[in-house]
Amino acid sequence: MASPVELLSLTNPVFKSFVFWVGVLVIKMLLMSLLTAVQRFKTKTFANPEDLMSPKLKVKFDDPNVERVRRAHRNDLENILPFFAIGLLYVLTNPSAWLAINLFRAVGISRIVHTLVYAVVVVPQPSRALAFFVALGATVYMALQVVLSAAF
Amino acid sequence: MASPVELLSLTNPVFKSFVFWVGVLVIKMLLMSLLTAVQRFKTKTFANPEDLMSPKLKVKFDDPNVERVRRAHRNDLENILPFFAIGLLYVLTNPSAWLAINLFRAVGISRIVHTLVYAVVVVPQPSRALAFFVALGATVYMALQVVLSAAF
Amino acid sequence: MASPVELLSLTNPVFKSFVFWVGVLVIKMLLMSLLTAVQRFKTKTFANPEDLMSPKLKVKFDDPNVERVRRAHRNDLENILPFFAIGLLYVLTNPSAWLAINLFRAVGISRIVHTLVYAVVVVPQPSRALAFFVALGATVYMALQVVLSAAF
Repeated sequence: MASPVELLSLTNPVFKSFVFWVGVLVIKMLLMSLLTAVQRFKTKTFANPEDLMSPKLKVKFDDPNVERVRRAHRNDLENILPFFAIGLLYVLTNPSAWLAINLFRAVGISRIVHTLVYAVVVVPQPSRALAFFVALGATVYMALQVVLSAAF
Repeated sequence: MASPVELLSLTNPVFKSFVFWVGVLVIKMLLMSLLTAVQRFKTKTFANPEDLMSPKLKVKFDDPNVERVRRAHRNDLENILPFFAIGLLYVLTNPSAWLAINLFRAVGISRIVHTLVYAVVVVPQPSRALAFFVALGATVYMALQVVLSAAF
Repeated sequence: MASPVELLSLTNPVFKSFVFWVGVLVIKMLLMSLLTAVQRFKTKTFANPEDLMSPKLKVKFDDPNVERVRRAHRNDLENILPFFAIGLLYVLTNPSAWLAINLFRAVGISRIVHTLVYAVVVVPQPSRALAFFVALGATVYMALQVVLSAAF
């Protein structure tokens, strides 16, 4: 088995691919906060009294455009953050490079598509469901491999 | 001190135990999405217009069964995800194997119990509180050890 | 390039600083649950029927003090957890020690300030916005460096 020294080095194409997609997905996730802010200002929907721009405004929690972006953001927390943890451990199991790189690509691309069809331009189902399940399936597969590598 | 090469290898029983429980808890967390979906279909509670299965339905946000699963899921985000980060760093502090493995077991088992008594079969308190505090206590202990190892 | 052995060792001041701030921020995040609990008991606002302390109480979801702490906590999930993932990969890119240590400090201190001005003593804007954007900017910078290190 390769040692962690080689596995966690950018000369390992599997780790390099993981590093790339984590970076991309972190930026994508952090942009969700800005997308929420854009919707808040557009619809004048603020959740805290100290955020109100004018004394005529009141706090508001039910704007559908703001809530849509927040649901997409929460879905990222539920799915992308566990991928970060399991992806690193999956790299340390020294998987087949071809398979691992394509799994990382599948998660990365499908989570970007998920955001686009959920929170940027609303596309009818099953587009969001498909994007969701591609990433979920890839992450569950990695988690099972990780559990198996440690179970015996 | 052992080097990161040995600490992050599956021949280190502490790392092996961490890897096992991260894999199990990632799968557990991802199943929460499916459990939410089951409750949404059962109670016909959908949060997006594009998800409505029939033109007679309207978006709905207050079904108690759906919201219960979502609260359990959010509690996972708040507690399991920080454990993933601190657990890895704790492994790198080269802790006592016996203690570390039992802390990981305590977190893993108590978070599974937390989900069962919160979102699967509702069990009266203090069952959920106990499960919550066992995992919280173990994670805070690891975090304190990690801070101490880096503070001096 | 330094090897992962040296980079992930506490003799590397960059890694040592990262480890310290992850530990501090994990403890800070976990305390948010206790702060929420304090507000729940103070205002008798419980989200689950099995949590009600007296048969006269009903579940309640809209107490502003409870919801304020929960928003601060969610903001931590959205910003601190991605920092944990990207910070570790950033350490592995062998960055300038001075820059990296100050970026970790900036994230750590600004996220503590964010909690204080949001959920402990409400301070008028732009204090919370400033704290938010310092941590966001530092995290996005690290993510861009990580993507660049893996893109070529």
